[in-house]
Amino acid sequence: MSRDILRGDRLKRLAPESIEYTASTSFDGILVKPVVKINMAHMAMLINQGVVSRAQGSLCLKGLREMPETLQLDPALEDVHMNVEAFLVKKIGGNAGGQLNLAKSRNDQVATAIRMALREYQVNIVSELADLRKTILDRVGEHITTLMPGYTHLQHAQPTTLAHHLIAYQDALQRDSKRLIEAYSRVNLSPLGAVALASTSVKINRELTRKLLGFDGLVENSIDAVSSRDFAIEVISDLALAMTNLSKIAEEMVLWSSSEFGAMDISDGYASTSSVMPQKKNAVVAELIRGKTSTVYGDLMASISMTKALPYSYNIDLQQLTPHIWSACSITFTSIQVLKGMLQEAVFNKERLRKLLEEGAIAATDLADYLAVEHSIPFRTAHTVVGNLVRRSVDEKRAFRNVILEDLAGAAKDIAGVEVSITPSEVDQILDPEKSVELRTVDGGPSSISVKKMIVNRKKGVNETEEWASERRRMLEAANQDLVKTTDELIGGEKA
Amino acid sequence: MSRDILRGDRLKRLAPESIEYTASTSFDGILVKPVVKINMAHMAMLINQGVVSRAQGSLCLKGLREMPETLQLDPALEDVHMNVEAFLVKKIGGNAGGQLNLAKSRNDQVATAIRMALREYQVNIVSELADLRKTILDRVGEHITTLMPGYTHLQHAQPTTLAHHLIAYQDALQRDSKRLIEAYSRVNLSPLGAVALASTSVKINRELTRKLLGFDGLVENSIDAVSSRDFAIEVISDLALAMTNLSKIAEEMVLWSSSEFGAMDISDGYASTSSVMPQKKNAVVAELIRGKTSTVYGDLMASISMTKALPYSYNIDLQQLTPHIWSACSITFTSIQVLKGMLQEAVFNKERLRKLLEEGAIAATDLADYLAVEHSIPFRTAHTVVGNLVRRSVDEKRAFRNVILEDLAGAAKDIAGVEVSITPSEVDQILDPEKSVELRTVDGGPSSISVKKMIVNRKKGVNETEEWASERRRMLEAANQDLVKTTDELIGGEKA
Amino acid sequence: MSRDILRGDRLKRLAPESIEYTASTSFDGILVKPVVKINMAHMAMLINQGVVSRAQGSLCLKGLREMPETLQLDPALEDVHMNVEAFLVKKIGGNAGGQLNLAKSRNDQVATAIRMALREYQVNIVSELADLRKTILDRVGEHITTLMPGYTHLQHAQPTTLAHHLIAYQDALQRDSKRLIEAYSRVNLSPLGAVALASTSVKINRELTRKLLGFDGLVENSIDAVSSRDFAIEVISDLALAMTNLSKIAEEMVLWSSSEFGAMDISDGYASTSSVMPQKKNAVVAELIRGKTSTVYGDLMASISMTKALPYSYNIDLQQLTPHIWSACSITFTSIQVLKGMLQEAVFNKERLRKLLEEGAIAATDLADYLAVEHSIPFRTAHTVVGNLVRRSVDEKRAFRNVILEDLAGAAKDIAGVEVSITPSEVDQILDPEKSVELRTVDGGPSSISVKKMIVNRKKGVNETEEWASERRRMLEAANQDLVKTTDELIGGEKA
Amino acid sequence: MSRDILRGDRLKRLAPESIEYTASTSFDGILVKPVVKINMAHMAMLINQGVVSRAQGSLCLKGLREMPETLQLDPALEDVHMNVEAFLVKKIGGNAGGQLNLAKSRNDQVATAIRMALREYQVNIVSELADLRKTILDRVGEHITTLMPGYTHLQHAQPTTLAHHLIAYQDALQRDSKRLIEAYSRVNLSPLGAVALASTSVKINRELTRKLLGFDGLVENSIDAVSSRDFAIEVISDLALAMTNLSKIAEEMVLWSSSEFGAMDISDGYASTSSVMPQKKNAVVAELIRGKTSTVYGDLMASISMTKALPYSYNIDLQQLTPHIWSACSITFTSIQVLKGMLQEAVFNKERLRKLLEEGAIAATDLADYLAVEHSIPFRTAHTVVGNLVRRSVDEKRAFRNVILEDLAGAAKDIAGVEVSITPSEVDQILDPEKSVELRTVDGGPSSISVKKMIVNRKKGVNETEEWASERRRMLEAANQDLVKTTDELIGGEKA
Repeated sequence: MSRDILRGDRLKRLAPESIEYTASTSFDGILVKPVVKINMAHMAMLINQGVVSRAQGSLCLKGLREMPETLQLDPALEDVHMNVEAFLVKKIGGNAGGQLNLAKSRNDQVATAIRMALREYQVNIVSELADLRKTILDRVGEHITTLMPGYTHLQHAQPTTLAHHLIAYQDALQRDSKRLIEAYSRVNLSPLGAVALASTSVKINRELTRKLLGFDGLVENSIDAVSSRDFAIEVISDLALAMTNLSKIAEEMVLWSSSEFGAMDISDGYASTSSVMPQKKNAVVAELIRGKTSTVYGDLMASISMTKALPYSYNIDLQQLTPHIWSACSITFTSIQVLKGMLQEAVFNKERLRKLLEEGAIAATDLADYLAVEHSIPFRTAHTVVGNLVRRSVDEKRAFRNVILEDLAGAAKDIAGVEVSITPSEVDQILDPEKSVELRTVDGGPSSISVKKMIVNRKKGVNETEEWASERRRMLEAANQDLVKTTDELIGGEKA
Repeated sequence: MSRDILRGDRLKRLAPESIEYTASTSFDGILVKPVVKINMAHMAMLINQGVVSRAQGSLCLKGLREMPETLQLDPALEDVHMNVEAFLVKKIGGNAGGQLNLAKSRNDQVATAIRMALREYQVNIVSELADLRKTILDRVGEHITTLMPGYTHLQHAQPTTLAHHLIAYQDALQRDSKRLIEAYSRVNLSPLGAVALASTSVKINRELTRKLLGFDGLVENSIDAVSSRDFAIEVISDLALAMTNLSKIAEEMVLWSSSEFGAMDISDGYASTSSVMPQKKNAVVAELIRGKTSTVYGDLMASISMTKALPYSYNIDLQQLTPHIWSACSITFTSIQVLKGMLQEAVFNKERLRKLLEEGAIAATDLADYLAVEHSIPFRTAHTVVGNLVRRSVDEKRAFRNVILEDLAGAAKDIAGVEVSITPSEVDQILDPEKSVELRTVDGGPSSISVKKMIVNRKKGVNETEEWASERRRMLEAANQDLVKTTDELIGGEKA
Repeated sequence: MSRDILRGDRLKRLAPESIEYTASTSFDGILVKPVVKINMAHMAMLINQGVVSRAQGSLCLKGLREMPETLQLDPALEDVHMNVEAFLVKKIGGNAGGQLNLAKSRNDQVATAIRMALREYQVNIVSELADLRKTILDRVGEHITTLMPGYTHLQHAQPTTLAHHLIAYQDALQRDSKRLIEAYSRVNLSPLGAVALASTSVKINRELTRKLLGFDGLVENSIDAVSSRDFAIEVISDLALAMTNLSKIAEEMVLWSSSEFGAMDISDGYASTSSVMPQKKNAVVAELIRGKTSTVYGDLMASISMTKALPYSYNIDLQQLTPHIWSACSITFTSIQVLKGMLQEAVFNKERLRKLLEEGAIAATDLADYLAVEHSIPFRTAHTVVGNLVRRSVDEKRAFRNVILEDLAGAAKDIAGVEVSITPSEVDQILDPEKSVELRTVDGGPSSISVKKMIVNRKKGVNETEEWASERRRMLEAANQDLVKTTDELIGGEKA
Repeated sequence: MSRDILRGDRLKRLAPESIEYTASTSFDGILVKPVVKINMAHMAMLINQGVVSRAQGSLCLKGLREMPETLQLDPALEDVHMNVEAFLVKKIGGNAGGQLNLAKSRNDQVATAIRMALREYQVNIVSELADLRKTILDRVGEHITTLMPGYTHLQHAQPTTLAHHLIAYQDALQRDSKRLIEAYSRVNLSPLGAVALASTSVKINRELTRKLLGFDGLVENSIDAVSSRDFAIEVISDLALAMTNLSKIAEEMVLWSSSEFGAMDISDGYASTSSVMPQKKNAVVAELIRGKTSTVYGDLMASISMTKALPYSYNIDLQQLTPHIWSACSITFTSIQVLKGMLQEAVFNKERLRKLLEEGAIAATDLADYLAVEHSIPFRTAHTVVGNLVRRSVDEKRAFRNVILEDLAGAAKDIAGVEVSITPSEVDQILDPEKSVELRTVDGGPSSISVKKMIVNRKKGVNETEEWASERRRMLEAANQDLVKTTDELIGGEKA
């Protein structure tokens, strides 16, 4: 069979240059398995409803059960749908095989198959994200007291800990995970039975196919069912956000492993050297996470602009959207995977991080807070006083500690009109980053007490995510076994 | 006060061209109200915690209560934060006013204010979407028996009804609504207390400010709190999807109101004429919905690529993201509004829609299904038989009905090897679109029975959405009254 | 050889999941031929400069000449560069083969190879565009007197001709062509010799390799040479604009071939039928042009955001940009190809186009112009008078001609205070679309005289484009032969 | 007058929510001046052609000459066109003023006005880019011998000079400049006379208005003239590329001014401090260049997707495109401006750059080249030998120089089977970055000889650009004076 089976009595041949142009076979491989299952569930339902005879139907089912998962797709047959039908007809003949698409169309079938492949990706990505979050929390646990400069604008801002910093990674990824889980409720719905767009007068049973294919509900309105791809674009957009969060982590790995920062050693397994410069050790995996993030942006922009202003119902522009789904899914999945390995093996350079703290006047806020709280200088004035001291320190190249000891009283007097006397040991207390950090016991702060509380909650969060993924896998597997059992019975019954 | 208050003792003056370039005052207007409330809640908390004296604190609160909502923002003061502080200092003096930013930073304040303005937009958009969905369901109710050609590829495909078609609109918008509601749980969280990035050693109470500002929880980790904008990009992405769905409806309004389709009259209130061609009546509102959809795509692409590969924590790139949030929100809100009016007043041309049905062989699928089900011809073969008849009808310019009557038996014999005899009344039954539609009683199909069932469920869905919006408004209002009452007491107490 | 050749004495093995993640072999196929040529030119130059001995160098050259164009790329070898080197080393041994990358790096080699593959695509696309423009001009020539309604806002605006309309297609494509030609001057420059980023102390000759590889000049600064991809993004952007113009033509083909417009029959070679609805003839090729346009937008957005804020010089993010170049090029090339065939074979329905003219008051502007010019009514007032007549025609369902005859005098009197009497034959003149069109003799207007002038100029334009493409092909071929001859001599010399 | 002038006798009132939604007055300000000029040129032409009487025409001209440039635009009047017409009618009455739009439409007028405003922006941006390039070349001149590590993958790669590095900036900007200049030839064309879409039967003279408005040619085909915005999207895309190049420079300024790099001090005029942390000096201007780059990406994506698949000719979606043009232009212009100031005042820390060179084995390539060239070890083998030494240096924490002296002979023997003996002074030569750089005399390399040659050429390039901009300004000014003179004569003539 070829496309000409369809066209034969209606349209003349496709122009040669149209064949490749209109085929989706180059990216339909992932849909073979779902399409076969859909055909099985649909045929089982048609038999059940008495629409197709058990004899013919079970022949179809047998043929479908023997369909190779790695079916080679022929572009001359346009897409996965016609390839599967052609394979079956070749195997079992046109009499039975020709019934395969009674009350079913490529329009509903492709929407169903995409949702089946996508939901699996979603579960796997959520699950991989949970692993990555666990990895991060493991590193958090190791670095509760590892001091480092907190950055804003890539400038040293205030002291914090590596643990506190890394929890920010996990929290962003937890939201990414949440979004994908919520989108699942819009993905895992069955469009099957919508047929071309207006359902059918054939007495089908959408509820039965829904159940056999493991869907949680229907995309009820049949026009909506074949026209909509917002479920997929939503997932691509969720993945684009997840990649954005990964790209921020990757950026820090590139920065921190630079000679200038010296804060992290990336494991050889995630680095490359140069074909010319033998000394190089480049954080190529991190750079590629950054680069691939943009490819997912491209997938998002392509797919959303593709559906803009399309009239109802199905238009084949939608065929062009499908490869962007798989691109985004596969990039995100593998990016999480490599980042997990990279983070597991990364060596943080504690001494260097501690040393970085000593550059600049990172305790300036602590000093201003001290003046405000202990000496009742209005905060804005205290800020000005300390700014003045910092400027002196920079301009006159004097250590900040010395400037405080020598000039604070004068500056406070001049600017705030307040008498302030401070002892060297008070200054040392203020400048001590351990102390500064441990005083930040506020919810979500860097003190070890705050961090430990966060770890506990987040571990619980990871567990919940893992349970969600396990439960979804269990349900999909159960539906699958139900489908196998149902077809077994129908085939067996026929045999008997 | 000017920026130089901040800079004065630390940095020399900004270059003149930097002033405008770095200011956010041109788009910060929407944040004035939230920023004032945040300052009130924060100061009330500081008094409560004993960090600021009641005397000074209540002076601040009084000043803030008198802040004009339409505060003119001066770019020389950089942003809404410094403008509000400067206004207050001018009003109540630097002693009290200078305490306003103790243990609070622009980094956490802006994230908090954005979330407050955004959550309000979200509730309003969801509520407006509910109104639009109601309007659609009203039109559905009027057109349960209005026949029209269902389209795929902009070609007549199968008969359906206008009601069935319009339900597809509502179902897409219901998903848009669902997404915005789910995103709300990530938006309505308080970053306040994160201060610059590392929280503070001052004894603040994040839980109290959370409650006074109507947030449902905290963005706990303080680095995450100031660095993250994924909550906003998620909403922009949800809005881009909603606009995409609106653009599809708009596209159909443009098409249907064309002379060629003639299927819809757009009310004058949503059309324009030409400055040159006095006969023109252009569906400009629908066209602009389509055009503005792309602006929201631009907002999405701008904001997501802006946060790519940014190192932690706050970078001022994020300032540039904010106007894209308001652009997307305001476009979506007004687009829903105009579309609602346009759909309410649109006049569907039933006669024309009915007449369009008669062009082409729209019942071809029904005939193929009939051959498959009634004459046991495998569907694919039946499809070929009917394709052959259609081709004859087109090539020989004969009415499809006549071709069936005259040529079906022969074609069925030749192609399928099956004897088929069909009576004129059987043909008329198959070709009758009313009958075709009413036979499609499957879930989600166009039959009046299926449509009526869908209407009932969807009205329930709209009600649930409306309740969600009302509940959110109630909660925000309650928090607001709590804030007013709390500050009243603190101010009053001071007086007493 | 494997990556471990490079890594072996510097870095431990790659993690298994990093291998696939960092390899570019899946999209490097197009670069095999250029990379082999670059290696030949580079080695010829090294021999010429006395850096590599003729004995070793000519061994390399011989090996390279025997390199299969369809070299299978092994991901374990990371990229095309290492695959080619490994193949050669295997063939001729490491002593000679190991010299291949002296004073050459993957950084300059990949930039050079991309430019070579891209310039070829550019010439081919420009040439294919010229063919399409010629096809359009052929159709223009057939339809100089084919009347049709000119549209604005998809509403009938003023009469025009199909020829006039189609010239607008060609003019947009001519600009697309111009842009690609101009970009060529930035693409066809040699980065070779930049090596990793800082050129080399080895005595290479960049001018010689430039000439042997057919480049028109150098990307001189060696840091710029390896860091820049703006040349490629510029081309992708030019292609995105070209696709946008194609998408507009495609959209009209979808619209015009709808049952409602009925203005065009698409040839079967560019249409598909449905798997369910045997009557369908869908303009799938046109729809896919529309859809694939968005994929190119995705390529543009991906590639431009990928290079944003990258520090100098080479970062491997750039590797991820490359497949987007080929995606955009290949989509555009094939889209032009199918559109050309589709336009060649499309049948325009002249009668239907003529009939559409009669709907609505398309001559309203002519009437207003007539009142302004012949009766000295200010144009805005004349516009109002005619608007009034149109409204009466619509509201009272009277033919526009009758309304003019019966109501014009009154309306002109009431609104403009001017006495206007008009005869039936004057009205017929104004309402006559042939006349209306032929009066528009202004430059660029629809009159046959204006159109014929435009055809002549545009044919000249197409010829100029074709000459540009031929000249480029000739120059590249000449350089290629020079390269072959040079290596022949070096190999031969060695033999002698 | 209000919109109802146009609508009055044709359409009922706009719905209140449609007024704001459809108005372009919020972003039409920039078009007031061009629209007034277009009206002047058009009216002068109509008088000249004898279409409008000198009496009426000169009244219009006088009114237009008195039009305030800062005309307040009323949204109730929809757009700049109707605002200008209404203002004039109010001033000189409807008899003369009503002629203003004879043979002219908003469709051609807006396309003309956009091109006039855009060309001015283009000239200014090109000119500002020339200034920035000059600034860069000045800094290049100061740093010809300032050594620094060249980076790839943000890792130290090979020694280079700051001059060499900065030239890469200028070269990218030179291409940006070139693109804008080439686009000018597609922008500076007159669509005027296309009227709504089909030109007009009124005897206008497009050549005359073209000349009076300073255009270099016509957008000839009248349908193309009103439908096309590719000229504008092309410029937005050129600006997006320019911003990308600016963002790369900005990224380096952020990195280099970090405490870790310490390679650059940003002048206070381009930095901010924190509202909380008084020690902070943040490179906010550089960060905002980075952020605003994404806004321009958004403008590009919005505008290109807005025109996708639009049928011909004018659709009001195009109105929504216009603000994106001004956004992209204004962001790019001001970004160039601030970057210029920032680069002028930046202080490069020579000592720190020199010190960075000493970290890592940055001379590894030089050593490998030495082994390949001086000891005839195949380059790949030499690379392996040096890689081995680097690994020892890293793993055993020994200075690279010592490892070479002590281990090179052994490693060369073991790996390459070659006897290599090297003296300390040879090693010092190889490790000497000054020497390494000065040996790179290849075209485009970092040696002072290569750099000086590049400076000379680039200064010439800047001059050529400046001449282009001056010439364009001169031509536009000449056309403007011609327009003033022409209207003067017509007004004066009338008076006489």
